[in-house]
Amino acid sequence: MPRRRLLAGAGAALGAGALAVGSARAAGETAPPGAVRYDVPDDPTKIPGRPLLEDGGYGTRSQFETEVRVKAPNPTDITSWTFTPLASQIGNLTPSGLHFERHHGGIPTIDPARHELILHGLVDTAKKFTVADLKRMPSVTRKHFIECSGNTLYEWAKPTAKSVQVSHGLLSTSEWTGVLFSTLAREVGLKENALWVLAEGADAAVMTRSVPIEKLLSDGMIAYGQNGEALRPEQGYPLRLLLPGYEGNTHIKWLRRLQVSDRPFMTREETSKYSDLMPDGRAKLFTLQMDAKSVITFPSVGMMLPKPGRYEIRGIAWSGRGRVQTVEVSIDGGKSWSPANIENAPEPMCTVRFNLPWVWDGRPATLQSRCTDETGAVQPTYQDLVRRRGLNSVYHYNAIQSWAVAADGGISNVHA
Amino acid sequence: MPRRRLLAGAGAALGAGALAVGSARAAGETAPPGAVRYDVPDDPTKIPGRPLLEDGGYGTRSQFETEVRVKAPNPTDITSWTFTPLASQIGNLTPSGLHFERHHGGIPTIDPARHELILHGLVDTAKKFTVADLKRMPSVTRKHFIECSGNTLYEWAKPTAKSVQVSHGLLSTSEWTGVLFSTLAREVGLKENALWVLAEGADAAVMTRSVPIEKLLSDGMIAYGQNGEALRPEQGYPLRLLLPGYEGNTHIKWLRRLQVSDRPFMTREETSKYSDLMPDGRAKLFTLQMDAKSVITFPSVGMMLPKPGRYEIRGIAWSGRGRVQTVEVSIDGGKSWSPANIENAPEPMCTVRFNLPWVWDGRPATLQSRCTDETGAVQPTYQDLVRRRGLNSVYHYNAIQSWAVAADGGISNVHA
Repeated sequence: MPRRRLLAGAGAALGAGALAVGSARAAGETAPPGAVRYDVPDDPTKIPGRPLLEDGGYGTRSQFETEVRVKAPNPTDITSWTFTPLASQIGNLTPSGLHFERHHGGIPTIDPARHELILHGLVDTAKKFTVADLKRMPSVTRKHFIECSGNTLYEWAKPTAKSVQVSHGLLSTSEWTGVLFSTLAREVGLKENALWVLAEGADAAVMTRSVPIEKLLSDGMIAYGQNGEALRPEQGYPLRLLLPGYEGNTHIKWLRRLQVSDRPFMTREETSKYSDLMPDGRAKLFTLQMDAKSVITFPSVGMMLPKPGRYEIRGIAWSGRGRVQTVEVSIDGGKSWSPANIENAPEPMCTVRFNLPWVWDGRPATLQSRCTDETGAVQPTYQDLVRRRGLNSVYHYNAIQSWAVAADGGISNVHA
Repeated sequence: MPRRRLLAGAGAALGAGALAVGSARAAGETAPPGAVRYDVPDDPTKIPGRPLLEDGGYGTRSQFETEVRVKAPNPTDITSWTFTPLASQIGNLTPSGLHFERHHGGIPTIDPARHELILHGLVDTAKKFTVADLKRMPSVTRKHFIECSGNTLYEWAKPTAKSVQVSHGLLSTSEWTGVLFSTLAREVGLKENALWVLAEGADAAVMTRSVPIEKLLSDGMIAYGQNGEALRPEQGYPLRLLLPGYEGNTHIKWLRRLQVSDRPFMTREETSKYSDLMPDGRAKLFTLQMDAKSVITFPSVGMMLPKPGRYEIRGIAWSGRGRVQTVEVSIDGGKSWSPANIENAPEPMCTVRFNLPWVWDGRPATLQSRCTDETGAVQPTYQDLVRRRGLNSVYHYNAIQSWAVAADGGISNVHA
């Protein structure tokens, strides 16, 4: 059939059913990750399309979709993080292949048939659960964001990020499925003095964090599913602790052990790291909940508005304390605010997408968004945040983000 | 670093950043589609994991996840369909790579920069919309199933399917994002006698269907997003018509033209095909809404219960007429029914997952599920369906499905 051929350089070594990505990249082609390149006919109605299952039965995205995660500019590729491309996200889910990452010892390869979760400590009967055991137990499916508490950390001293992917891309939203911790707690029986739980990962960093048992009992989940399939390896395959609204680092990936105790364990990650250094030199520990926050993704830094006229300002809002209640947008740097449209029904500890129609008159403007959650928490201005927290902090930056629109349509990152 | 190597046969030809899938398959390896194979360490805490972005920035699933779409046993690989692996689905979304497919002329490769949607006919001003035009317009994001009206077609005369993937796998659920047809209608202005719309695809079959304009104006969507990213090529990239609850064939993929008319166009697909032949030899046309339906996915045909004891019966229910209201489960072939737990808040024209704890006593049992939707429509028994529709039909089979559990734990497909 004279219907299509793989693009030059990609086709030679491929048998039927093989994916072109590896070979195309090895040959120096620019095939985007996760895509297969095909010839593009002038008129697709005039030749048969490609056959079914040529991709082996698990499909890939279009060759024209090129957005990828990008890595933080730090020297190691084992202990680092990657950002979700928020500007090109469509809808209110992050594709699993684009979920942000934070790794402390690389991504382990784990056989789920050999992986176990141990629940022990201040319990009546310590137990081991296989992945199959957990999958047989009653499950819940819930949509939640995960945000690294280091999200937007480059913005403390001065506006730095050159894209919304880098400024706010340590944030992703998935549908998660798993077993509630409360279900496991009934299986083992908690002692009366059970107050904290150590969660431990099976990665090379043996990541450990202490979590209050009230949080685990209220909505903590041992997740094995993400967006309709198993967790992705980068997200903790086969098991991850999910703590809706808590900082990402506590959502222990490759979860292998939960130890119940009467006190926190004061691990490296919750003392030296993931603590908040205040202006007086003392550090706050266990600042676990993520705050009310939002960002405008269109237009955002690095973009260019082609000309004055009608636009739709678009963005994302979220809070670790509950549902988003309102989002407001300002085009004059916070002097006046308009309520934005919220595009999806707010769910607890889940992102919403918002928009506001805007006619740009061609004059300079400063775009901001402000989130208020159902507890009444309001996203602060940069000045308010620094007044309260000082400039010693790394984590939990949730200030209102300002994008300056210049007369030529260029967008820059400013502290307004 | 002595940390991991790709499995034998996959590593030799690969540069850094390359995916192993293509080469591994070419070398006869059994790497599952959509996965990369890595060595599995005995203890993943003892060696660094793999580095970030080795996959190029768009992640893939674990090598231990092997479920794939399977093709219908018909002779062509251009005009055929593939089934979603429902038994292994987790949560209430179908991974985009596993969404069922129905193609009539293969999968076209379309450059979104060159693709246009024409809206003409009984309108005040015919217009062309580029994909970029549509993405700038007000959008909606909604979760809906799509079901091929041929789903479960093998079951009319006798129980045939050997897996729930083949019996019910022409059903998938996604979060869809796009522009409502009503938004486009305001742009072009509909004439008073506008009653039907022809939707036309840009595939080699130039697929065409007529749709009542009331449906389009109520919730019809020009979708460009699926599960947080662009539509997958198999789902109509870059544009698809989404008609919540209507038979899948009307959700025209690779959508390029909408022609407004005062009558249906009586295309091949809605006269010769996708019509329902009744017992008296006459055919019903335009039976567009999908009916209340459900199926138990665990346990289901082809599985084996290892021993008597505690199980959780699990399944999926849906209706094209609105929200699922209740799901009932029977273990005695419909003599008695118990209300099932519904795991997620029902949304209009969207699947729900249900479950029911069950203690199997080791004696033969016949498992059934029955869906009732918010309009009061109840999923019929096989006998009721055949009494009403006869055995001439191909499409819109929605009878209660029966799985027989034998004393040895084996599960078979029966008409109970």
